[in-house]
Amino acid sequence: MNRERADRQFDFLLEIDKEKKIGRQTYLSDGSRKENDAEHAWHMAIMVLLLSEYSNEKIDVLRTVSMVLAHDLVEVYAGDTYAFDEKGKETQRERELEAADRLFGLLPEDQGVKFRALWDEFEAWETPEAKFAHAMDNFQPLMLNAATGGKSWQEHGIHLSQVLKRNGDSKLGSAELWDYAYENFIEPSIRSGVLKTDEA
Amino acid sequence: MNRERADRQFDFLLEIDKEKKIGRQTYLSDGSRKENDAEHAWHMAIMVLLLSEYSNEKIDVLRTVSMVLAHDLVEVYAGDTYAFDEKGKETQRERELEAADRLFGLLPEDQGVKFRALWDEFEAWETPEAKFAHAMDNFQPLMLNAATGGKSWQEHGIHLSQVLKRNGDSKLGSAELWDYAYENFIEPSIRSGVLKTDEA
Repeated sequence: MNRERADRQFDFLLEIDKEKKIGRQTYLSDGSRKENDAEHAWHMAIMVLLLSEYSNEKIDVLRTVSMVLAHDLVEVYAGDTYAFDEKGKETQRERELEAADRLFGLLPEDQGVKFRALWDEFEAWETPEAKFAHAMDNFQPLMLNAATGGKSWQEHGIHLSQVLKRNGDSKLGSAELWDYAYENFIEPSIRSGVLKTDEA
Repeated sequence: MNRERADRQFDFLLEIDKEKKIGRQTYLSDGSRKENDAEHAWHMAIMVLLLSEYSNEKIDVLRTVSMVLAHDLVEVYAGDTYAFDEKGKETQRERELEAADRLFGLLPEDQGVKFRALWDEFEAWETPEAKFAHAMDNFQPLMLNAATGGKSWQEHGIHLSQVLKRNGDSKLGSAELWDYAYENFIEPSIRSGVLKTDEA
């Protein structure tokens, strides 16, 4: 074992512990509190293991799981940007690029390059794996919002049009799961009045 | 898409959200609060991705990552049993077997069998993947305990002999990482007096 290499790996592993304190806007299914990035990534990873059969295109499951586990790591420095925070999104890319240089630079070079490539792939939204990972990134909070009666949507006054815009490319990952999510997570919230149509 | 199959998959995915509320005894690296099972599993999964090169035997990384993501799922019904709670450990196996039947029974049969097999493999501690997964299950809290000055060990009055007993089989997963963990996470806590030797 190269001790300096191991030191860098463990420095990184300790640093990413901070992801457990990066809060998201989505509530846990019992509505008791909001979840954090680490919990969200764990949940998405199990979704990939169970739902990859619905991907539009065949995906490499290990690469997709690795991607979802790592997709929010840059937020330990850049913070979480709420999906519907249009102002925060203006500076999101710049903040996250700086964070990526700093965070992945902690790792041994070969592994830093590998993790950076996973994050770049996710951000580029082009490969079947990235498309499926983004679908999970959207369906996981949809599932929890439906379970809590749209608690987070209500808190932020989110309209249906915003949810549909956010999910505009979800079907690129899985058309079947998008149909399922629309029927099971979005339609009930429209019917109950939680998600307001723009005319309402 | 078979809707009944998808319903079962999402019922399971919603049920395991409860893992985010299963508390562990280990503190986050900043000592601010204890972590939960979902955060712990996420952290372990990234450890597998980065540290598999140190496994004593070659491992299937996807199976090992899947195993660590799922290894604590039964605790959504059985609760967490602290590593040093000898009384709790007497009933742990029975509680967890009941929980496994109930939880994995939510899934479509093929996936329930697959996830149950992953958990059984972890519990049996026999394959290279299970040995490495257990090593991660031990090193992750060692790393956090070292980072917090042994906060959880102090709270529970844990002695060195208990940590060594708990880690007795860690080297079966990775002898190199066990040496590294001993030197970097355990020895400093002995020197500082946080981990008491039995004579102390």
